[in-house]
Amino acid sequence: MARTMIRAIMARNGGQGEEGQVVKVRVDLAFANDITAPPAITEFRRMGARRVFDPDRCAIVPDHFTPPKDMASAEQLKVCREFAREQGLLFFEPGKCGVEHAFLPQEGYVLPGEVVVGADSHTCTMGALGALGTGMGSTDLAAIWALGHTWMKVPPTVRVHLEGSFKPFVGGKDAMLHIIGTLGVDGARYRALEFHGDGVRSLSMDGRMTMANMGIECGAKAALFVPDEATLAYVAPRARRSFEPVYPDPGAAYERELTVRLDSLPPLVACPNLPSNVRPARELRDVEIHQVFIGSCTNGRIEDLRQAAKVLKGRRLHPSVRGVLIPASRRDMAAAMQEGLMEVFMEAGFSICTPSCGPCLGGHLGILAEGEVCVSTGNRNFTGRMGHPRSQVYLASPAVAAASGVMGRIWDPSELQ
Amino acid sequence: MARTMIRAIMARNGGQGEEGQVVKVRVDLAFANDITAPPAITEFRRMGARRVFDPDRCAIVPDHFTPPKDMASAEQLKVCREFAREQGLLFFEPGKCGVEHAFLPQEGYVLPGEVVVGADSHTCTMGALGALGTGMGSTDLAAIWALGHTWMKVPPTVRVHLEGSFKPFVGGKDAMLHIIGTLGVDGARYRALEFHGDGVRSLSMDGRMTMANMGIECGAKAALFVPDEATLAYVAPRARRSFEPVYPDPGAAYERELTVRLDSLPPLVACPNLPSNVRPARELRDVEIHQVFIGSCTNGRIEDLRQAAKVLKGRRLHPSVRGVLIPASRRDMAAAMQEGLMEVFMEAGFSICTPSCGPCLGGHLGILAEGEVCVSTGNRNFTGRMGHPRSQVYLASPAVAAASGVMGRIWDPSELQ
Repeated sequence: MARTMIRAIMARNGGQGEEGQVVKVRVDLAFANDITAPPAITEFRRMGARRVFDPDRCAIVPDHFTPPKDMASAEQLKVCREFAREQGLLFFEPGKCGVEHAFLPQEGYVLPGEVVVGADSHTCTMGALGALGTGMGSTDLAAIWALGHTWMKVPPTVRVHLEGSFKPFVGGKDAMLHIIGTLGVDGARYRALEFHGDGVRSLSMDGRMTMANMGIECGAKAALFVPDEATLAYVAPRARRSFEPVYPDPGAAYERELTVRLDSLPPLVACPNLPSNVRPARELRDVEIHQVFIGSCTNGRIEDLRQAAKVLKGRRLHPSVRGVLIPASRRDMAAAMQEGLMEVFMEAGFSICTPSCGPCLGGHLGILAEGEVCVSTGNRNFTGRMGHPRSQVYLASPAVAAASGVMGRIWDPSELQ
Repeated sequence: MARTMIRAIMARNGGQGEEGQVVKVRVDLAFANDITAPPAITEFRRMGARRVFDPDRCAIVPDHFTPPKDMASAEQLKVCREFAREQGLLFFEPGKCGVEHAFLPQEGYVLPGEVVVGADSHTCTMGALGALGTGMGSTDLAAIWALGHTWMKVPPTVRVHLEGSFKPFVGGKDAMLHIIGTLGVDGARYRALEFHGDGVRSLSMDGRMTMANMGIECGAKAALFVPDEATLAYVAPRARRSFEPVYPDPGAAYERELTVRLDSLPPLVACPNLPSNVRPARELRDVEIHQVFIGSCTNGRIEDLRQAAKVLKGRRLHPSVRGVLIPASRRDMAAAMQEGLMEVFMEAGFSICTPSCGPCLGGHLGILAEGEVCVSTGNRNFTGRMGHPRSQVYLASPAVAAASGVMGRIWDPSELQ
């Protein structure tokens, strides 16, 4: 029977099966961060495991509380480093890497057609490259480090047809917020999303990563872009292994189909406290804000920084707004510096910090006090996500975040004077 | 009787008196940070005070845990902001200022001849400009905010004669470590230091700030440079008020005199756990390190960044070393960016963070785990200063920190191949 893309990738890695069947699949890359690696290491030892299955396919990317914000995070980082040395696995010091989901694909550790498991829910980002990226808990990851494979149930797939192209100041973030708003936060639970259509061509790889990244926000097991020329052009110069893209079979059966007309989308915002609570930015002008955060595995890549800088150039943050800019990776930060974007952010009054998850998940570098409101380019706006339980987070694109920072209230960048 | 410089400044501000007498002095600027302002605000209200004595002479510079590292620091920042709005006093958002002792003089809020009180021990930095800068607790600061004056005992003065000029890779930090090593950590307790000699001319204003900054590390109430052409050239274009430099009277009596021959100094390091525990860097090659921190009110200014970058250019951090670079202020960060220094730090593998005190006082952005060793350009290496009680801090100049980062062990930059 004709296979969806996720089924085809599972089969390529030994997991032949029909939807609903549990299959065993080989894992091409298994990674964790400074928060999820330490419990994985504990479990790894409890299982009696001695060596990881392949040190070149196991990675730890410390990104959550780095550089360490306190003694607990310093000790966690040390646990990671010592295990990495013992096993000879891939490990990157803070300052030399970035947020795992940005850094690993940028540096060629993730390739089309692969199965990638990360002990972090936003591992679905890897779907932008046509890889089956999915998040698991630390215990599952420990078993993968030991064995090199895992089990998964073959999921049904929702086919998303992207049609047309974006209007100015609209992009992947808005498209994905629209999809999450349409499906609901559990609308694709244990489903794969599979993106098709001519609209895909109007998305850069960074834009696709933004979309795939938020697949989990509607419950998706994975969010896959069918590889095209852009995928291959992105991957070829950085690939650290040979690879072979996997495609869905023609005539594959989808559980559901969804069409998004990109040119109909305005700049969107997900209001507290759910990513599905989506409204046009221009309807939210009454919302006064205290902080904007531009960064994260969702929207901290160079294209995101360019979009924000375009809005900010020659402008300044509203006096009552703090701005926090955290590029997603060392590479993104270096590129932004080279392109002169950092000057724009500095002139506008932003704090510029070394790549890390920062305040996105309430980690550090911009935590909110009671009653404070933040426009964040991150991926979640649950109660207390970025600080106090009575703080609020609005999710938006870098362009909307930048325009809101300038105006001191949520603002549609296309309506900025 | 001929007056020392500190006596002359006290007298200028109404505090005429002999050594040992308690006098009342007007305060020209009274500031606090995000840690010390909240208790000062509480005390201010407990005293029944309604308005600060002069909103243009009261400041809050949030620099310790900014951008907020957690909910507690977010709430503290909010308390500062709300009080600042209520009183109309000087307040600067994170990202728009820097470390208080770097930012305030750079922006012309501190002037020669003035009395400046900060609720932070390193307020003695202001002595570089010929101001009587001294640190007090939050309660004293609250009283100054309410009244505009404070009391002080007129201290005796230690006259420090700086002779000659520095060898390459040696500067203000080394000179001051030498002085602290000579005097001991209580050798100038409740004394003023007063710097004289032709050696002063070989110190830039940034170098003088480094030296004055560490006056408190030998117990000094203040550490004063006699204003010269360099002082006036620095201050004139940025002064926010008119000012009149104050000088010591010829023939003033000093409690003690100390001569430092600058050309005899090698790059120095203060070993754990006292700033007075000083040894030449080249004798410490056996000390393996895990982190270097370049930044702080002591050594995070543009000249410091230039010195470190000069050593780092074309080199990389040792694989087992993390580097954290935190410019002392927005102005220093912008200058470093414009001069291309940031690329050098990034290429070398440093984490580059927005201006704040960072890990210097164990705040955030590079806290040490058990057993870890850091070379820090900060000012204190007491037990547990930067993290775990069993971590260790070696204090050094930016040049020594950079060379040590490259070699993975403490290293004299003049001996780098």
